[in-house]
Amino acid sequence: MAVKPNIQMSNASVPLVHEVEILDEMGRLKLTHIPGERPLTIYLDKREIVTLMTLGSAPEALVLGYLRNQRMVESPDDIESIQVDWDTDSAAVKTRRSTVDIDALTSKRVVTTGCGQGTMFGGLMEEMSQIRLPEGPTLSQEAIVGLIESIRSHDTIYKKSGSVHACAVFERQGDAEVRLLYFIEDVGRHNAVDSISGLMWLVNKPGKDLIFFTTGRLTSEMVIKGAQMGIPFLLTRSGVTLMGLELARKTNLTIMSRCSGKHFEIYNAPERVLFSQIN
Amino acid sequence: MAVKPNIQMSNASVPLVHEVEILDEMGRLKLTHIPGERPLTIYLDKREIVTLMTLGSAPEALVLGYLRNQRMVESPDDIESIQVDWDTDSAAVKTRRSTVDIDALTSKRVVTTGCGQGTMFGGLMEEMSQIRLPEGPTLSQEAIVGLIESIRSHDTIYKKSGSVHACAVFERQGDAEVRLLYFIEDVGRHNAVDSISGLMWLVNKPGKDLIFFTTGRLTSEMVIKGAQMGIPFLLTRSGVTLMGLELARKTNLTIMSRCSGKHFEIYNAPERVLFSQIN
Repeated sequence: MAVKPNIQMSNASVPLVHEVEILDEMGRLKLTHIPGERPLTIYLDKREIVTLMTLGSAPEALVLGYLRNQRMVESPDDIESIQVDWDTDSAAVKTRRSTVDIDALTSKRVVTTGCGQGTMFGGLMEEMSQIRLPEGPTLSQEAIVGLIESIRSHDTIYKKSGSVHACAVFERQGDAEVRLLYFIEDVGRHNAVDSISGLMWLVNKPGKDLIFFTTGRLTSEMVIKGAQMGIPFLLTRSGVTLMGLELARKTNLTIMSRCSGKHFEIYNAPERVLFSQIN
Repeated sequence: MAVKPNIQMSNASVPLVHEVEILDEMGRLKLTHIPGERPLTIYLDKREIVTLMTLGSAPEALVLGYLRNQRMVESPDDIESIQVDWDTDSAAVKTRRSTVDIDALTSKRVVTTGCGQGTMFGGLMEEMSQIRLPEGPTLSQEAIVGLIESIRSHDTIYKKSGSVHACAVFERQGDAEVRLLYFIEDVGRHNAVDSISGLMWLVNKPGKDLIFFTTGRLTSEMVIKGAQMGIPFLLTRSGVTLMGLELARKTNLTIMSRCSGKHFEIYNAPERVLFSQIN
């Protein structure tokens, strides 16, 4: 993890996969693996903010991305330290200066599609109406197929235990190639995207040449986060909801679903995709 | 929907599936279907509580179940009316008497595994430590296989559009048979379970002879909701997290994952399953 030198961060780790005994449908004893899930309570300058349920693979990045996406901190420079302690399931965040009115932020909340992270819905929609990504860049059909293959072949918690969502961010290397920058798994798909958002924030990474891949559905909140990060390509192995599509149209995001093998479906802004013919 | 006579409820409906044009990986135009997703802002006695993102298939039940599970209303008898209006994406709930301190309830929140619905984590764990389901009832291997088959053959939004989760509740008819009581789909798996919880509340249905099925994972919050409803069997087509398993052990729930075809895996309390041999 690229750590910006001016934030003191712990590097807390916990076991991510656990072996358990089960009975199958014939009553036969078997061993299988399941992912961990644990509470992580965030304290911002000693004030309790929220408890997230997480796999725990990248807790410091998750905390950072959560504070970013909830607009609770304006810049990573405002943060002095993030200390995660799994003995107490807590993350203590210390700021250099308090910059936002936490009371106002936590007074209303939106429980998004099965995946809530409190925010004011009206405010979010207002913010979305301000975002419109510029034309370009483009990506070839082969680059997209290569990206899907690199996700498939990645070593994952999912392959060991199932029951987690993955998010990944790739960077364009021209039209024809992509390079993997981040790969995060979590029991919650929003935690995975928040963690990636945190990692991008640390190194001040702009979104304009990036491709975001998720195993989860592109519901409204996922598209909102993609637009907020300024990422022109959102890809999912799964599907899209109508509101996800409408938000992609408004913000000019290219969204693709059912990405698997050599197959993908483009729901919006297909002009960013360069078609050749591969079979 | 079984409507208890003393709650005035709207019966609001919206289109659930939408046809959209896409391009496939060769740039060919195709038609496909995606589910709707829309905001529903709940007002409790004119006070804004939350905005849920929902498919909209059973909004009144969703509102009722949300208020139940968030402990914002103590009994359905306390509710005079629930009026959902899709023109304004709002649900107005009027109570007969205000019974709980909303301020206290909304002051802290837990964003559960990618699927938050605000609640105090400590309070929830305390509540869980009070719940322990009694021994029994039992269910035969054949009844479980039959249940899985009845879910598979059910006509669903999922089959038309993908991108939704389903929850269903079955009732035991002795050891060897089950009967479908409720089937709800939503873009959020927690909305689906909340809606079913609302329907059960309306008719004061106890959980003790019920089987709960979900297409979503059995994470901590799903097991918590199952335990709160007193349902001894939780089944999923998907997987289980460690915290979901630990909570099932504490509360003595039988949980099964990977339910598909004639296959299932039992993670806890297998003594409720009667094994015969089917192939």
